[in-house]
Amino acid sequence: MVRRVIEFWFDFSSPYAYFAAETIEQLAAETQQSVVWRPFLLGVVFPKTNMAPLIQMPIRGDYARRDCERIARLLGVPFQLPASHPYSAVKASRAYYWLEANRPEKAVDFAHAVFRVHFADGRDPSETSVIADIANSLAIPSDELLSAIESSAIKDELKRRVDEAIGKSVFGSPYFIVDGEAFWGWDRMPMMHQWIAQGGW
Amino acid sequence: MVRRVIEFWFDFSSPYAYFAAETIEQLAAETQQSVVWRPFLLGVVFPKTNMAPLIQMPIRGDYARRDCERIARLLGVPFQLPASHPYSAVKASRAYYWLEANRPEKAVDFAHAVFRVHFADGRDPSETSVIADIANSLAIPSDELLSAIESSAIKDELKRRVDEAIGKSVFGSPYFIVDGEAFWGWDRMPMMHQWIAQGGW
Repeated sequence: MVRRVIEFWFDFSSPYAYFAAETIEQLAAETQQSVVWRPFLLGVVFPKTNMAPLIQMPIRGDYARRDCERIARLLGVPFQLPASHPYSAVKASRAYYWLEANRPEKAVDFAHAVFRVHFADGRDPSETSVIADIANSLAIPSDELLSAIESSAIKDELKRRVDEAIGKSVFGSPYFIVDGEAFWGWDRMPMMHQWIAQGGW
Repeated sequence: MVRRVIEFWFDFSSPYAYFAAETIEQLAAETQQSVVWRPFLLGVVFPKTNMAPLIQMPIRGDYARRDCERIARLLGVPFQLPASHPYSAVKASRAYYWLEANRPEKAVDFAHAVFRVHFADGRDPSETSVIADIANSLAIPSDELLSAIESSAIKDELKRRVDEAIGKSVFGSPYFIVDGEAFWGWDRMPMMHQWIAQGGW
């Protein structure tokens, strides 16, 4: 298969992105692709499509809650929707991009930890102390990270990434782009797998 | 496997319901379930969830169009979104319920024909002449059918079915309910298949 890059766009606060994060590396290995992790902020994108956080939507939210619990049992991953859900992923997203540039070997581990600390452990990654705890658990200097995510450089970097998402019509989470083809949702991952394997159809 | 009934709720104007209609009978055969076809009107349900027809939504509509074309190629079924899309499925839905009660052996064939006449042939089933043509092609007396769908009895029947959908929190199309478990979307059909086969998880 041709080696391509899968752009994996997500909001850290999206439960379906959590499920995608738990499985994207296996998909990438099986299809011999590499993955770039691209956190963005759904809250900035939603007004452009008249959408709101799924969990907060009438009727659809109740379904999504049950659907997520069902998927978590299917995948065998821990799952809860804490009281703090959905939270602002600004700090976590800035931290990811800073790590990608400065401690690239830690970046994906950090992303996994952000997802898990919320959806498995029930904590709120919009709190600085939670970001610090994650950093410490991964042997990332937390003082350096917390200072970095308040820098104007990294603030601008996240803004640019959100603008990039908007420019690429990324309207949901998770949202994958591979070789110009877009796949929205955890439930499109099998189709993306097949698409890559067959080179499209 | 325990023999159950899959309730297949759909709006005739929904492209993802068309794809579901083309595949639900195979799923039912493989899992030894029976299917009841339950047309309803998304236009009545959407205001309750602040939703609108997907194809008309900014950005999401463009994605859905491409996604539908991709699914159609995958399934090997003809597909187009005619200028008349989305159309009002009131007449087709009333006709379905009248047939279910009075010509039950024709009802599912009629449903398939409604989907195909729009998504394959580009015609508009909100036009009486299109309903008549479908009836004639299936050896259903079209005069009788066209008169029946203007009766207050069948108008009330469709209203009851839409109310039933609302009462069951059916908010999208297609939407399946089997043994109390709900599955929304064409893309949940593999999961529903697995759920039935395993008796849940």
